Amino acid sequence: MEDQQLILSFGNTLKSVREERSLSQEKLALNVGLHPTYISLLERGKRQPSLTVIFKLAKELGYSASKFVELVERGVK
Amino acid sequence: MEDQQLILSFGNTLKSVREERSLSQEKLALNVGLHPTYISLLERGKRQPSLTVIFKLAKELGYSASKFVELVERGVK
Repeated sequence: MEDQQLILSFGNTLKSVREERSLSQEKLALNVGLHPTYISLLERGKRQPSLTVIFKLAKELGYSASKFVELVERGVK
Repeated sequence: MEDQQLILSFGNTLKSVREERSLSQEKLALNVGLHPTYISLLERGKRQPSLTVIFKLAKELGYSASKFVELVERGVK
């Protein structure tokens, strides 16, 4: 699995779940204590998240981190 | 969940699974293209992994990333 493909799948998953929750990037950023610009970079696959960021974002979006990572895995298959 | 607790759980999980596989830090590092010192820092909770590092380590240890993250979650409960 190529790194960039994985990073893009994370971004697509994040954007998709965030929009399902009707959360703006700004609101999500505020709730998890991250910068809105960083959320935008993650969603576009321009940055990759650390372990703790994965857990924070998943939790805020109503998923366990393992379930969220499973969605990311599906996106690269 | 506190960040440091989570980072430590990742390190404990990594060390525990690596030892189950009878892999040295050096061998694991070589197989995944990381530095042995970085593996040691991860196992001691002194660094946290990025998304792509989580996927690489899990795969090398015979787990999907989501399953590996599930083990990390169990470690913080």
